[in-house]
Amino acid sequence: MEPQTDMQPDSPPETAIDLDDLGDWRKTHSCNSLGRGHVGETVVLMGWVQRRRDHGGLIFVDLRDREGLTQVVFDPQFDAVAHEHAHSLRSEYVIAVTGTVRPRPEGMTNPRLVTGEIEVITRELKILNSSKTPPFHVEDDVEASENIRLRYRYIDLRRPRMFHNLLLRHRAVQLTREYFNGAGFLEVETPVLTKSTPEGARDYLVPSRVNPGKFYALPQSPQLFKQILMVAGFERYYQIVKCFRDEDLRADRQPEFTQLDLEMSFVNEEHIYELIESWIRLLMKELLGVEMAPPFPRMSYAEAMRLYGTDRPDTRFGLLLTDVTDIVADSELRVFRQAVERNGIVKALRVPGGGGLSRKDLDDLTEYVKIFGAQGMAWIRIQPEGWQSPIAKFLQESVRERLAERLEIENGDIVMFLADQGKVVNDALGNLRVRLGNQLELIDPGSYNFVWVSHFPLLEWDAEEKRYTAVHHPFTSPIEEDVPLLREHPEQVRSRAYDLVLNGIEIGGGSIRIHRQELQELVFGALGIGREEAAEKFGFLLEALQYGAPPHGGIAFGVDRLVMLLSGSTSIRDVIAFPKTQKATCLMSGAPSEPELRQLLELCVRVESERRS
Amino acid sequence: MEPQTDMQPDSPPETAIDLDDLGDWRKTHSCNSLGRGHVGETVVLMGWVQRRRDHGGLIFVDLRDREGLTQVVFDPQFDAVAHEHAHSLRSEYVIAVTGTVRPRPEGMTNPRLVTGEIEVITRELKILNSSKTPPFHVEDDVEASENIRLRYRYIDLRRPRMFHNLLLRHRAVQLTREYFNGAGFLEVETPVLTKSTPEGARDYLVPSRVNPGKFYALPQSPQLFKQILMVAGFERYYQIVKCFRDEDLRADRQPEFTQLDLEMSFVNEEHIYELIESWIRLLMKELLGVEMAPPFPRMSYAEAMRLYGTDRPDTRFGLLLTDVTDIVADSELRVFRQAVERNGIVKALRVPGGGGLSRKDLDDLTEYVKIFGAQGMAWIRIQPEGWQSPIAKFLQESVRERLAERLEIENGDIVMFLADQGKVVNDALGNLRVRLGNQLELIDPGSYNFVWVSHFPLLEWDAEEKRYTAVHHPFTSPIEEDVPLLREHPEQVRSRAYDLVLNGIEIGGGSIRIHRQELQELVFGALGIGREEAAEKFGFLLEALQYGAPPHGGIAFGVDRLVMLLSGSTSIRDVIAFPKTQKATCLMSGAPSEPELRQLLELCVRVESERRS
Repeated sequence: MEPQTDMQPDSPPETAIDLDDLGDWRKTHSCNSLGRGHVGETVVLMGWVQRRRDHGGLIFVDLRDREGLTQVVFDPQFDAVAHEHAHSLRSEYVIAVTGTVRPRPEGMTNPRLVTGEIEVITRELKILNSSKTPPFHVEDDVEASENIRLRYRYIDLRRPRMFHNLLLRHRAVQLTREYFNGAGFLEVETPVLTKSTPEGARDYLVPSRVNPGKFYALPQSPQLFKQILMVAGFERYYQIVKCFRDEDLRADRQPEFTQLDLEMSFVNEEHIYELIESWIRLLMKELLGVEMAPPFPRMSYAEAMRLYGTDRPDTRFGLLLTDVTDIVADSELRVFRQAVERNGIVKALRVPGGGGLSRKDLDDLTEYVKIFGAQGMAWIRIQPEGWQSPIAKFLQESVRERLAERLEIENGDIVMFLADQGKVVNDALGNLRVRLGNQLELIDPGSYNFVWVSHFPLLEWDAEEKRYTAVHHPFTSPIEEDVPLLREHPEQVRSRAYDLVLNGIEIGGGSIRIHRQELQELVFGALGIGREEAAEKFGFLLEALQYGAPPHGGIAFGVDRLVMLLSGSTSIRDVIAFPKTQKATCLMSGAPSEPELRQLLELCVRVESERRS
Repeated sequence: MEPQTDMQPDSPPETAIDLDDLGDWRKTHSCNSLGRGHVGETVVLMGWVQRRRDHGGLIFVDLRDREGLTQVVFDPQFDAVAHEHAHSLRSEYVIAVTGTVRPRPEGMTNPRLVTGEIEVITRELKILNSSKTPPFHVEDDVEASENIRLRYRYIDLRRPRMFHNLLLRHRAVQLTREYFNGAGFLEVETPVLTKSTPEGARDYLVPSRVNPGKFYALPQSPQLFKQILMVAGFERYYQIVKCFRDEDLRADRQPEFTQLDLEMSFVNEEHIYELIESWIRLLMKELLGVEMAPPFPRMSYAEAMRLYGTDRPDTRFGLLLTDVTDIVADSELRVFRQAVERNGIVKALRVPGGGGLSRKDLDDLTEYVKIFGAQGMAWIRIQPEGWQSPIAKFLQESVRERLAERLEIENGDIVMFLADQGKVVNDALGNLRVRLGNQLELIDPGSYNFVWVSHFPLLEWDAEEKRYTAVHHPFTSPIEEDVPLLREHPEQVRSRAYDLVLNGIEIGGGSIRIHRQELQELVFGALGIGREEAAEKFGFLLEALQYGAPPHGGIAFGVDRLVMLLSGSTSIRDVIAFPKTQKATCLMSGAPSEPELRQLLELCVRVESERRS
């Protein structure tokens, strides 16, 4: 047990204190490293005052550094000067002490602390800096709002939880580098000041002073450069690199984010899968102590959509979707029939033993699916006395029989139905499935389910722009056998893209690329990118493909998100040292800020007082 | 000996060729890995056709990958199909071959090639891609201009020299990370979208779409963030990170450059020196096989200026400067006397045995010093028959005697003099010294002379802005004993900054920082940065210093320049995969480019057709 506090540690000292210089003192140990084995040793510790307690004429200080805590004792009989000096100590003062390690007295050890069996009796104290009372205490159970934490990030980062998140990130990154170095990959830096290629997300632009009227773009990814490195014969490239997207921010997005980016020559999908699975298994084992068996399951996009309603399937639990369009097409329920007539689909989600869901629960779930565009939701309770449901009377016996058979219905189940366009049904029912998985506690929080999803469509129709756009990016290779479809049925062409999904979250994605100019031009054509536009935007890649480009492919992983998942954090802001808010501002430094007029003049740029349109 | 070439390898094939797919082939070996030990093995090699030679009915191909070359043989008696197929091969075609390793015939081995004892007799050939005739050959003795090399960077990077530069860079970076990881440093990423702090060089600005009229700045260094990490208790931080300066480019500058950036808490200069010297010794040993003895020599700024005329002394050779102001102050030579009267100085450079320099040489050297602002140069030949010089007659016997003594003059020497303001004399004579060192071949090209330079002035007078500016940056700590001079004689205050110089080139610099708010405000005051301005620009740092900032210091190294020196390259562009020109453009991608109007509209930014003033 520790001595009781009998002072207010945050009250200001009575007088301004003299601060000491570090001089030639050197820290000998971290505050988490001392134990019984060190008893009798003279040590020098440095860190921050976590707590000061005065008790029985002694002063006790919990001294904290990034590694942990050590109890430091000031005893007037041992050193009166240091003891006197220690009276001025307050929370977050920075001190250095020289002292001797001794066992704590009987009954005073603290088993919750690594150093809980010892204390350091101080012979000399240096107060290296004082501190104002911090806006919040340095402890994991912080009550401050996130805005206050971001504003005083230097205090927030002192919390053990935050330090350990960033330590985990450090370790994950180093393990990753060691792994890819060992696999023959070269780390190559690609430019940050690059050319704007208005495909995909919005670019951040940087005006060029030397070339007035011209702008660089910050890279959304090093895609073109890593392909160029393959053409250059580098064979295996990787980089852990900042990328940038000027998008409206969602909870898990940042304007700048970190990617593990890699590319390999002379490979197909199998090489990439093997390489990545070994890497992930290494991270899981070294960072979490979890052994993952190879290989990871694989699923086509079509199968993922069919069974999970999403290309990011969370495979930790069942509740698979079942298409029942064909069965209900001739039911008497108008909403089903209409959906089918309009080329929509009807899908069912059977919740085994879901009969316990109340009417209120079902109403809430119905409201929930509307978020995703569904008009409503039908449901049926399967009970011994029959099917209970507002829609039961519209389902003829033959329909019921076929549903019961396909859905493997049992007593006590509840079955939910959505009927609409395929996209709406899958989106709403896929999300409903995840919500039910959480609500019904079907998910083991300690499980890590990885799954490869592949065979995505190459192109999708953009109704707004009235043209096809690339589902991944325009350099993704189509599957060889689908190439003949490119001109007539581009929407049917499947790509050689693949995503790695963990617990329903996409953590990485990539593809085998197009390495022949003719095919690249064909795909640009399908995307409605004319020869001139292609030359303007991607000319150097098209040209490079003519000078001996090898077959190649690669993948990229979101490091922030991966570390968030590995650390059990709920926000990527908790694994980034200096994140931005959802307004893309830094609450600590005040970025972005108004430039000086001189700066804009040099750049030949003027700010509009109002957004033109 | 290799078979003689009897075809034009660059002539186009007669007809378009069918390309093969990689299928499930896997490369088993690199093209630099096969030797006698592999004879009889079946291997799969993939790479680029370096050369094709037809000889005696056989086709020989030098197959190149990033590691090296292997000779591949197509023999119609062994496999007629592959042999026929091989007829279409041209330079830079991408191929995969399956074959068997066999010893080269007697007299046909090539001792210059790692794989020169064997060849691979091919059983199957896949032509994975063709290539147009490249604009220059892939070989180290490239004759193409640098602009052509940058335009076709993907071909330039195939040259072994370029690949090995980037491989060396990769290894240097990995060794560096391993070293700092092992020393308890954490790699932490700091933001790229930061706040503009118009001290130092010009910032690159990035307009914020979400916050119209506001701009981010790309960081010139992570200085403020690394200090914040020390306040946050991280104790040891490092990062290999891109930094940005919008300066007019000199030969060895790039708009974006890579820094090894680090910071430590609870340290003084000695800790930093020890840490860095061990790291440098590691790099030298592992990358160059050179053992460096600790510790590195140290020199104060004052001493460096006195003896070398520069704070970047090249200590590989002598030719030290000698101040003779006091001696020549009362000579009869007007140019000396005047310089002294105008508070200037006179310095001499004795070239032992320099008498061999011709009159033409001396005229050239005189022209050379004018580049640095000198009006002219005086010189004296020391010959047995007396001092030969246009100025000899103006030097009285007493002056001659004192000069001879101080300069330790000997027969056969030549002594050069410059008289002007101190800055001009040091600059011109320091550069003259280096030129003579090269011209007279006094420099051993295999020697690596590191030296620490410290005790820089804290501030220097900016005549244009009419105020003091920080020599390093405004967070550099003054030397404790000089602090009282800050108010009255700021120019006399020495700083706790240090540079590491290698062979006359600054490769790193840093300082012990100010960790107390009062001293930081005092220095801002000496810099003419008012309280309001300081709060606006650096408010968060000033605030952080009030919440328990530990003593701390750090250093940063230019990775591009360091790797350039380690690789023996003469340009940093040769150790950067995708460098920019001196006009800050990328000749391959065409960056920067004109944005689309839509992009500018969204950013509320308009381009001025002419630079306003």
